[in-house]
Amino acid sequence: MKRTERVGAMIEILTQSPNKVYSLQYFCDLFGAAKSSISEDIRACNAALEFTGGGRLETGTGAKGGVRFVPHISDEKLAQLQEEFCRKLSDPGRMLGGSFLYTSDIFFDPEFIKKIAAVFARKFKDCGADYVATVETKGIPLAANVAQLMNLPLVIIRREAKVSEGSTVSINYFSGSYDRIQRMSMSKRAIRPDSNVLVIDDFMRGGGSISGITEIIGEFNGHVVGVGVAIASTEPVKKKIENYTSVVFLGDIDEENKKITVTPNFDIF
Amino acid sequence: MKRTERVGAMIEILTQSPNKVYSLQYFCDLFGAAKSSISEDIRACNAALEFTGGGRLETGTGAKGGVRFVPHISDEKLAQLQEEFCRKLSDPGRMLGGSFLYTSDIFFDPEFIKKIAAVFARKFKDCGADYVATVETKGIPLAANVAQLMNLPLVIIRREAKVSEGSTVSINYFSGSYDRIQRMSMSKRAIRPDSNVLVIDDFMRGGGSISGITEIIGEFNGHVVGVGVAIASTEPVKKKIENYTSVVFLGDIDEENKKITVTPNFDIF
Repeated sequence: MKRTERVGAMIEILTQSPNKVYSLQYFCDLFGAAKSSISEDIRACNAALEFTGGGRLETGTGAKGGVRFVPHISDEKLAQLQEEFCRKLSDPGRMLGGSFLYTSDIFFDPEFIKKIAAVFARKFKDCGADYVATVETKGIPLAANVAQLMNLPLVIIRREAKVSEGSTVSINYFSGSYDRIQRMSMSKRAIRPDSNVLVIDDFMRGGGSISGITEIIGEFNGHVVGVGVAIASTEPVKKKIENYTSVVFLGDIDEENKKITVTPNFDIF
Repeated sequence: MKRTERVGAMIEILTQSPNKVYSLQYFCDLFGAAKSSISEDIRACNAALEFTGGGRLETGTGAKGGVRFVPHISDEKLAQLQEEFCRKLSDPGRMLGGSFLYTSDIFFDPEFIKKIAAVFARKFKDCGADYVATVETKGIPLAANVAQLMNLPLVIIRREAKVSEGSTVSINYFSGSYDRIQRMSMSKRAIRPDSNVLVIDDFMRGGGSISGITEIIGEFNGHVVGVGVAIASTEPVKKKIENYTSVVFLGDIDEENKKITVTPNFDIF
């Protein structure tokens, strides 16, 4: 097999399973090649990936030695993404009245969501999370993408306990957006006790829902080690949670003049 | 830039956006290379991808000329995947009583779900779908992966109409699994009229939920052009829908002897 084809094959295998560690021996066996050749191939892979900016291969040493693909989004691509996000979100056709915006088309667009997920995968790559959690429904595809990029299991917290979830833990919390008490419920089988959890959601206004997630994870002796929301509302300024990272900020929704103010978060990293 | 690195970069770009068409000119500009070199690179990419079995690059001709990555799963990998699926699903620890099984860990495992999605992407690659639809909640990560592999927007049908969905169309249907009338609701903005829709879900027993999806899509003058479910129950034999493809069949759940019967669907393709 030619080096060109080996490098292509390695890139396909490694980038399709981000953050999954493959031993060098795996590739030696797969290609029938010596370790020195594989090491050389990894350098070529990294040159290719540096060019596309999509991430890099990291090699570990010792017993845990191996190679994995760590996804990345460059500052330049982040700025383009934020600009695209602001443009999409500020389209007055999204207004539903009562400060609600239709955003399902954005959050159910696989290519766009994958790019947003890459921002969170970069931001939280060293947060030590064991799980990525979200509350149903709209943020699920985004959270699933983040979980995929970080090679972590996904946890979906339900609005209502379901038979198919087995025993569950439920909490009530106050949602400012809906101005009422809401409920969320999580299967007892969903996470191991004492786990670290990265919380991902599509939108945050007052933070009631995210603080509910924090509370329910606390019921499992779990720890929230990061919060990423695609859109955070600028109002209310005082949120129920302190630390979070948003990709953009949603400001005033002026229904009379059909103007929606959206600004990038320049302070993600 | 060396050919090795160009081929690596092309594979990364193309496989990260399956079924997205890139013009040859795009790569000529990106690499500062002649079309003949790029054509040669595409051949090398295909040799690499043939080796991994993950898919192939297809090139179009004429005005629509360009190259795209079409994902694939080999018969051999499918058989391995089905075996793994049967083994996971037949673990008696999943029994929740009343013929319910806990399956969230399976459907929220990003790497596993991506492999199941590849089966449906292969099965339905020529079905002409404009959208991939599912009903919340457990099948969403799977459907999102299928949508990503097919480069189609995702539609999530909700159990309850939400303010953030705008105007919705709702239907009632009978769910055999829950032995009661259930409701589903879809935003009027979710699909264009007269669209073709591929329906993906995690589990089907009697087909009530899928036939509900078919009905609600009919309200938009849409057409269901394919149905893929990860698990289909062998009972009842007579389903409310006729054409569907499952990856495995779930047979008897013998709670007394702690035995769950699961068999591969040998007839997917």
